[in-house]
Amino acid sequence: MAKTERICTLLLRLIAFGATLSATIVMATSHETASFFAVSFEAKYTDMPAFKFFVVANAIVSIYGFLVLFLPSDSLLWRLVVALDMVFTMLITSSISAALAVAQVGKGGNSSAGWLPVCRQVPKYCDRVTGALAAGFIGVLIYLLLLLYSIHTVLNPLLVQKT
Amino acid sequence: MAKTERICTLLLRLIAFGATLSATIVMATSHETASFFAVSFEAKYTDMPAFKFFVVANAIVSIYGFLVLFLPSDSLLWRLVVALDMVFTMLITSSISAALAVAQVGKGGNSSAGWLPVCRQVPKYCDRVTGALAAGFIGVLIYLLLLLYSIHTVLNPLLVQKT
Repeated sequence: MAKTERICTLLLRLIAFGATLSATIVMATSHETASFFAVSFEAKYTDMPAFKFFVVANAIVSIYGFLVLFLPSDSLLWRLVVALDMVFTMLITSSISAALAVAQVGKGGNSSAGWLPVCRQVPKYCDRVTGALAAGFIGVLIYLLLLLYSIHTVLNPLLVQKT
Repeated sequence: MAKTERICTLLLRLIAFGATLSATIVMATSHETASFFAVSFEAKYTDMPAFKFFVVANAIVSIYGFLVLFLPSDSLLWRLVVALDMVFTMLITSSISAALAVAQVGKGGNSSAGWLPVCRQVPKYCDRVTGALAAGFIGVLIYLLLLLYSIHTVLNPLLVQKT
């Protein structure tokens, strides 16, 4: 029972690591050069502070996720992992929300503020950003699942007293 | 000991409730009419999807925070409150990040995307939005504190066995 559980958790953490890592890489490598009238410009993730935050946050969580994979199962640090999981889940939730809000303006524009959508000029860049956001979203969902499971386990007094 | 702790927690929850409620009200009532050349337009929170999300998320968390204040201290539901706290903290973290990302573009503009800053036209609206974001930020910080404290308490096996 405990072994199946541990393998499941490890598998989920592996998927979460893969998701955050690919979110980082896809977002960091997304760029496209477009010409608008006579001016050619390059769209990169560094253009938007929210996208930079997304890359940094996902990179940090990827490193954390990688390190946790190698934590021995009898380590006392697992108690700390619940708190760390929470802080890092909050970090990527925050980064994906910020990136999504800016991406929404990029895709749909905002008529009240007079901001034009930019996705028609750089469609490939937009597709890559969408992909990165989707990967990041998978990461967030898995971390949320792991967290709710941890809280459920820890809150169950029978399980706590058994260990 | 346990009583002081309970009063502290209740006080923190009261402040958090006040912070999220004022964030909701300040954001929802922020509007300014400005005239740009011959056209006059009104800036409202409904112009931006991210700000609408901020109002809805903070309103939900305010209602939740209000209800939790009246939970009897010996209720078994307190175990559920840790999980609910986490989900709702994530919700307001997400909403404040999205609103902050859009507000940053509104304040500073984005030269790569050709989005002009709008705060010069509607300075009072911008100030109110900043105030709402600050109140929301205080709410997030207090919920994060409560959550880390809950996890710390629950994770401490001595405390769990004592109750």
